[in-house]
Amino acid sequence: MHISASSTLAEERIVTAALLVIGDEILSGRTKDQNIGALAEHLTNVGIRLREVRVVPDDEADIVAAVDALRRRYDYLFTTGGIGPTHDDITADSIAKAFGVPIVLDERAEKILSDYYAAKGLELTPARLRMARIPSGADLIENPVSAAPGFRLGNVFVMAGVPSIMREMLQCLTPMLETGAKLLSVTIPVNRPESEIAEIFSAHQSRYRDVQMGSYPLLRDGRPASDLVLRCSDQDRLREAVDTLKAALGV
Amino acid sequence: MHISASSTLAEERIVTAALLVIGDEILSGRTKDQNIGALAEHLTNVGIRLREVRVVPDDEADIVAAVDALRRRYDYLFTTGGIGPTHDDITADSIAKAFGVPIVLDERAEKILSDYYAAKGLELTPARLRMARIPSGADLIENPVSAAPGFRLGNVFVMAGVPSIMREMLQCLTPMLETGAKLLSVTIPVNRPESEIAEIFSAHQSRYRDVQMGSYPLLRDGRPASDLVLRCSDQDRLREAVDTLKAALGV
Repeated sequence: MHISASSTLAEERIVTAALLVIGDEILSGRTKDQNIGALAEHLTNVGIRLREVRVVPDDEADIVAAVDALRRRYDYLFTTGGIGPTHDDITADSIAKAFGVPIVLDERAEKILSDYYAAKGLELTPARLRMARIPSGADLIENPVSAAPGFRLGNVFVMAGVPSIMREMLQCLTPMLETGAKLLSVTIPVNRPESEIAEIFSAHQSRYRDVQMGSYPLLRDGRPASDLVLRCSDQDRLREAVDTLKAALGV
Repeated sequence: MHISASSTLAEERIVTAALLVIGDEILSGRTKDQNIGALAEHLTNVGIRLREVRVVPDDEADIVAAVDALRRRYDYLFTTGGIGPTHDDITADSIAKAFGVPIVLDERAEKILSDYYAAKGLELTPARLRMARIPSGADLIENPVSAAPGFRLGNVFVMAGVPSIMREMLQCLTPMLETGAKLLSVTIPVNRPESEIAEIFSAHQSRYRDVQMGSYPLLRDGRPASDLVLRCSDQDRLREAVDTLKAALGV
């Protein structure tokens, strides 16, 4: 049996998070989001439960409303998108507004950008300097790819939308996160369609109410099959639920 | 110049939509969503503006709250996921609860499933029959892939989560939709980084406030470049904004 994350104490607390994806290009279908899946996988691996995702347009009122709702409801809120040098990049201003703090030309960010462009022999234009506008009181998040930093304000972490930059920022900010009980998971592949194992599976869920059980249909070698996924933060309990389910299904 | 949708009258009304993606497997990162991008692209092509997306877990209270918020705020709400035969498929029950209507064994859906399984020489088990439980008063949405239908209740369209089935259902339900002014778009590729064209671009946005302008950074032949995207439902106005921007940028 492969258990996909290391063991933790069952009494560790649950740490929750939400993601806000900001950008007209995702909603128009022009750009296909890759950040939801990447963040979800990363948070699961470090022991944080992603509980909700929202995608909103480049509209200040929409961003402020979503930030306000999500940062209060979850331990952490992550955002992606809208922190570049052009006029449609309004995430930093929207976050400042949501927190009721001024947005300032951040000296640390200005130094980072100034060094980066100087090393390339390029001028620090007003547009480039716009990326040093950061809400007052925020910590910076390093951007090892293209310098312009993200930032953290309270429990909100603001990252770039470009997937390669977002992934690097996520690595850089992870040490700032308090993590909790990891949700361990085991997948049981079954070569029968969901509808043939649904009754056994449902009875099993009733028996193990503390283990989350989900069923995902797929084609395996061209035939309808199912992946049964069991999730629990207690390794012994998970192992028992998996063993008894396999016995009940005869797999 | 390539304009990516056909011309429409500027005075046509704006039709808006939201998408609710339902499923623990998306939030855990186990399954990477493909439906947001597919729906976004389809709606843009038929003249409906996708304004918001949410992803929530297989939790009735979360689903009901999101359905209630989104169906009131937008002309249409689409959902994906949670309509299979297993105990974790709770979308139909949650939609019935959100609308305050009973969920019933739908005779039309029962006939579809009964015919489908009979043709395969398979029994219509209670688990399979579960997929005929539909909120009272709903219209069915055809599923050409695996029979079990989706449904429409009021302005809410409920589809399967498996991407191939979702896309077929989307084709089948499109004739039920009222569509509006198409948002036309033109992409101008520029071989300069965003930070070098930001000032001209921002001035152009101020001049054409009725044209949405977004800038998307990318690497082209290994060098920082930008795609500038202009969107407007009036073709002549869009063409003018594109031509004058190209002239200003010298491209």
